[in-house]
This record gives sequence, structure tokens and C-alpha cells, in this order.
Amino acid sequence: MAIKYANRMERMKASEIREILKLTLQPDMISFAGGLPAPELFPVEEMKKVAVEVLEESGEKALQYSTTEGFLPLREKIAQRMNKFNINAKAEDILITSGSQQGLDFTGKIFLNPGDVVICESPSYLGAINAFKAYECKFAEVPTDDEGMIMEDLEKILEKTPRARLIYVIPDFQNPTGKTWSIERRKKLLEIASKYDLPIIEDNPYGELRFEGEIPPSVKAFDTEGRVVFLGTFSKTFCPGLRLGWVCASKELLEKYIFVKQSADLQTSTIAQIELNKFLELYDLDKHVEEIKKTYRKRRDLMLNTMKDNFPKKVKFTYPEGGLFTWVELPDGIDAKELMKKAIEKKVAFVPGGSFFPNGGHENAFRMNYSNMPEDKIVEGVKRLAEVLKEELGK
Amino acid sequence: MAIKYANRMERMKASEIREILKLTLQPDMISFAGGLPAPELFPVEEMKKVAVEVLEESGEKALQYSTTEGFLPLREKIAQRMNKFNINAKAEDILITSGSQQGLDFTGKIFLNPGDVVICESPSYLGAINAFKAYECKFAEVPTDDEGMIMEDLEKILEKTPRARLIYVIPDFQNPTGKTWSIERRKKLLEIASKYDLPIIEDNPYGELRFEGEIPPSVKAFDTEGRVVFLGTFSKTFCPGLRLGWVCASKELLEKYIFVKQSADLQTSTIAQIELNKFLELYDLDKHVEEIKKTYRKRRDLMLNTMKDNFPKKVKFTYPEGGLFTWVELPDGIDAKELMKKAIEKKVAFVPGGSFFPNGGHENAFRMNYSNMPEDKIVEGVKRLAEVLKEELGK
Repeated sequence: MAIKYANRMERMKASEIREILKLTLQPDMISFAGGLPAPELFPVEEMKKVAVEVLEESGEKALQYSTTEGFLPLREKIAQRMNKFNINAKAEDILITSGSQQGLDFTGKIFLNPGDVVICESPSYLGAINAFKAYECKFAEVPTDDEGMIMEDLEKILEKTPRARLIYVIPDFQNPTGKTWSIERRKKLLEIASKYDLPIIEDNPYGELRFEGEIPPSVKAFDTEGRVVFLGTFSKTFCPGLRLGWVCASKELLEKYIFVKQSADLQTSTIAQIELNKFLELYDLDKHVEEIKKTYRKRRDLMLNTMKDNFPKKVKFTYPEGGLFTWVELPDGIDAKELMKKAIEKKVAFVPGGSFFPNGGHENAFRMNYSNMPEDKIVEGVKRLAEVLKEELGK
Repeated sequence: MAIKYANRMERMKASEIREILKLTLQPDMISFAGGLPAPELFPVEEMKKVAVEVLEESGEKALQYSTTEGFLPLREKIAQRMNKFNINAKAEDILITSGSQQGLDFTGKIFLNPGDVVICESPSYLGAINAFKAYECKFAEVPTDDEGMIMEDLEKILEKTPRARLIYVIPDFQNPTGKTWSIERRKKLLEIASKYDLPIIEDNPYGELRFEGEIPPSVKAFDTEGRVVFLGTFSKTFCPGLRLGWVCASKELLEKYIFVKQSADLQTSTIAQIELNKFLELYDLDKHVEEIKKTYRKRRDLMLNTMKDNFPKKVKFTYPEGGLFTWVELPDGIDAKELMKKAIEKKVAFVPGGSFFPNGGHENAFRMNYSNMPEDKIVEGVKRLAEVLKEELGK
């Protein structure tokens, strides 16, 4: 049998990383690899009450098909929550998706022909890179510093990239670096996108998990032309198991996402939407987010302090003000994939950095997650990792 | 602003039908348009118990991320249930999807380059046509009779269609016609697919809802080469609101679906999967399906008898042995879209047939659903429709 596949399938192979990550599922592994929230903070008791009330009040409706756009009262509540990011949205600007990963897939489907170019931060989110790759695009990586994408580099790249079709950014606690863009860069990005008439995809899964200071206005907050598509999710502020995310965009753009959603999976789970809506009615999600932040802040501090005390001095890492990740940079020539194999032997895991660079290179970095492991394991895991690093690099 | 979209978006416009269907949401409308199950049969009480038990026993797990492939105990149970269709499957042959619509979307993504040809029944399922269209394919429609696709026509079409890439069929209670393929045709289809080395996508959402006789072996039951992809769903036997479907395929093919799922939405809802698994442990789904069949059989009989007694004699329709739909054929020259407007005025709705023919034409037919409306509304709705038909066609 020699069935023919679409050309895109050549790019969708089992990743080396995915195979390594399977090893992290061993029960005695200390894993800083995934982007998993702390499950002990999930509102399990509250969800019991929610589930029963939803089934009692509107069981038939909750188990039936519903609209592609999503459950209207939930869309209304999400629109209101967009105020946190200085966005003035209405229910009609919101499409409910099956997690924000689906918003990334739809973005590729809507904007990309084979050979088109996605402009992204260097490094950028692995899951977005894979979602876009399925539409046979190329990537132009824009260098970043502590304030976000470097705008001069963005302009230079756009000048010589006529097939640029969208700019994908994660301005708040970027995945994988944990860095946050300055307000000036956000405004400048819009200016440049306007000049080249490109849509901006602003992916913001972590923005609410800010441990210090105020949430800055989103890129979309400065969007007067309706060119920014904002992707949000409840996976980090509530729980990922229900698969609830959203797209917030202007009418013209959102319409495209709705068409694509219709043919992709008809709609997001009715009962999950009605349950989340009920949760938002009965409980204070913001208060819940405060609890999450308290825990993650503690874990971040513990991880960074343990790293500072134990990692060799040549190893650099970021100090994120929120979110889930810190990004570790090794001296040139050190391959984090090789390091990973040794770390796995010591039962500690991270994600090697190479996968976050769509055009390859930069193997001398890795991503560490601090949200999922309890405090004692964070200390123990970082110490084990420090041993591996010292063996490779000396002190 | 003149943002560029992917070429595929030119084919994904708001359908005329979708606009008409919005009218069917009026509360006093008798709608035979959708493919909705009867909500009064949903196991609401059982789901209350299930939801509470799942959250008590494994709340943290149910609300967390999980694997792309799906919850293993559920995959095992689905594999077992495939016996109903004479398929001998193992858990590893099953991928859980967000409804079977997602399986259709993935099929397009896996097999279709722009300009490739999908071979399908004429007419075929609207949602599949739209899912495939997003991958810029063409369609070759194969004529059908009461035993399924006409195999001589299929061969003739394949001979002159070098870019044929997959054969899409709904052999049990076809959507929209309600017809079921003979066993001979199923075997012959495999023989021809083997000769041309094409994958077969067997979409089977209704097969278990058989009111008379035995479930015939599926096409996949005769598949010795692993070329049949079977798409299943719990939307019609359990409830659609949880969005739970599956793909059953050989290792090589299923692997592709898993890659595509990973980048499309990471995974299907963890809690929905664990809940369904719990439901299958606590309750007898087959017994529940018997209840559904009893109700739908009654409704089918009522609809068909009322049609027989009241529709003009020139109007023909199918006698499905199960599933949700009957297919009504009008004399040449009558446009069901025009008829629909008049029906809507009388507060009764159906889906005009043209949309089920990807290459157009055949406007003189429409699809009627008998699962969703209660008995009194079926009688009243069919009578109103008969009036519209008599006004157009005479008695």
C-alpha cells in the first residue's frame, strides 16, 4: 500500500522532543518540561457543585448541539474580562475555541498559503510553530531583547519578505523565555504592522498570572484598525481539562475564524461552556487566580534562587514577572538535547531549546517550568540539574 | 485594511443555507432541518452521578491536560464496541476526537493537496464536503442507487481521475438519503480502492441506530490492508454536547491523525472522556440506544406515514431502516430553496438538497429529520409542508 499524503504531512513527523518527553511521564521523574498548571489548585469541589447545578437547571441544553460561535452568556463574560488587557470587547467579538491551540491552528488555516511567511519572535512557542507548519509556511524569526521583539530587525525583515502574511507574538511572559514586552514595543509593532498591512496574532495564555506590578495594556488595546487577533485561554487560570479558549477579533476577522470552526469541529463542548459560565456566576475567578499566583510566585522564587545558588556561573536565565517558564542559556557549543539525556538519567527533565527556533540552531538553551512541581521537588530537581551542568561545564 | 487570506478562504463563505437555518431557531418553528438527537432522551440524571463520581475519584486528573491519543480506558471500550461493526480493534487503533466532524477535517488535512479529488456519493454529507473544501480539493460525485454507490460508475470515474486521493462514504443510513449499502457493494468498494490504492473514509455516525434487522459488517470489517479509516461518534447514541468521536485506523494511518490532532487542539477534553468512560462503566449504553431506537422508529413511521398520506403523489422519498433522515425528491424544475422560503412562512423547515451535491445542481430535493421533533409536531409539520407542496405541484 502506498497511499499518497498531502505535502504538509512531510513536515509533521514525530518530533524527537516528543519522544524524549514521553520519558518524563515516568512516575519518579521530576519534570520541569511541560507547561502544566498545578493540579492541586484546580477547583474540584466547586466544579462538583457547578456540574450538578448545570445538569439540574439545563441538562438537555448542556448535552445538545449548540452554536459554532459559543454560549452567549459565556461570550459576554469573556468580553468583559478582556478589560483586564485594556480591551473594550463585546460578546460578538468572541469565538469560543477548544483551547487556544485551536485558535493557532485556525490562524494558519485562515492566513497561510504554502510558502507564505510567519513573522515570529526568536525563540517562539513550539505549539504555534507546529500549528502553522501544517499550512506549509516558512518562518522569519525576529531577534528579541528584554523588551520584546527588536523593532529595527522586524522592519528590516519585513522589507525583504514580501510573502510575510502574519506576525505572531506572545507579549506577556513569553513562551519559552518568560519575558514581557514594553509598552513602547507594543505600540511600535502596531505601527509597523499597519505599514505592511499585516494581521497580528497576540497569544496571551499567561497574562493574568502576573506576580508583580500591573498587567500592561495588550497589543490589541492599541489596535484602532481591527488588525489584532487576541487568543485567550482558561487553561492556566481555571483548568485545561475542559479545553476552553477564545478568539477576540474584529467582525471581519472573527467571521473567518467562525467559518473555519464550523468545518473543523462544529462547536466547542456545550456542557464545558455552560459549566464555565456557571462557575463564573457562582465563584470569583479573580480570587482563584490570586491563589494560583501566590503558589506560582513562591515556586518561581524557589526555582530561581536554587538555580542561582547551584548552577554554574556561565549559565544564564531569565527572571519572569509571571507566567510559567524561565529560559536557561548555556555557553555556545553546549547541546541541550544531549544534556537532556543525562538529566533524564538523573530523573529530571526540561525542554531543550532548539524546538523553539523554527529555522533551527540555538541548541544551547532550555525551558524550565515552575508551576507544576511541588516545592520540595523543585529544589531537588534543580540541584540534580545543577550536577549535570557542573559535570558538563565545571563550576 | 486589505489583509490577505489564504486561497482556501474564498471557498469558505457564509452559506445561503446557514442563513436560512438561522430562521429555524425561531421558537415556534417546526424544524426538520438539523440533525439533532431528541434531547428528552439524554441521560441527564445519570450524568449527574457520573460527573460527581469522576470529580470525587479523579478530579485533578480530569481537569488536567492529558494525552493527544485519548484516555486509555475509553479507547479500550471503544475498541470493544467496534465489534458491533465486525471490526476487531485494539485501544491503540483508536484516537479520540472532538466529535467526528474533527475526523473529517483531519482527513482533509492528511490527504488533500489543492486540486486533489475526493470521490464521494452523490449526494453526500454537507459537513464533510465543507471540511474537505477547506483543503481546496475538487469532488467527483458517484451516482448511487438503493444499494449504495454504483460500482461501475465508480470505476469509470477513477479511470479518468488520476488525482483522486480518497473515497468518502457513509454506508449506513447515509446522510442525506437514509440509504444503506449492500454487503456486496462494501466488498466491491474495497476491491476497487485496493486496485487504485486509495484510502476509504467510512463515516458511520448512525449505524447503531438500526430499527430493523441486523447491523451489517462495516466496510472496514472486510479491510485486510488497513486502508479504511472508520469515523465514529457518541453524538447520536449518547449526546453531542460533550463532543466525543473517534477515528479507528491502522497504525500507519492513525499516526497521521495523531500528529494532526496534536497541532490542531492538543487533545479532546479530558473530563468529557473520563465522564463517558465512567458512564460506560456504570450504565448500559446499549440499553440506552434501544430506548433511542424505539423513539426514533416511532417518529420515522409517523413522519413517513404522514408524508405518504399528505404529500402529492409526484413527490418521492426514501424509507430508511434507521438513522435520522429521509430524503425527498421533487419533480424536475422545482427548486427546494424556493420551497423552503414558503415553508418558513408556514413555520416549518427542512434542508434544501442542493448543498449535498458538491458540484451543484439537483435543487429538486430536500432532507427531513425525524429524530428531534416530538410526535405531534411531526404530524403538524408534515401537514404544513404538504400544503406548501400542493400549492406548488397540485395534488
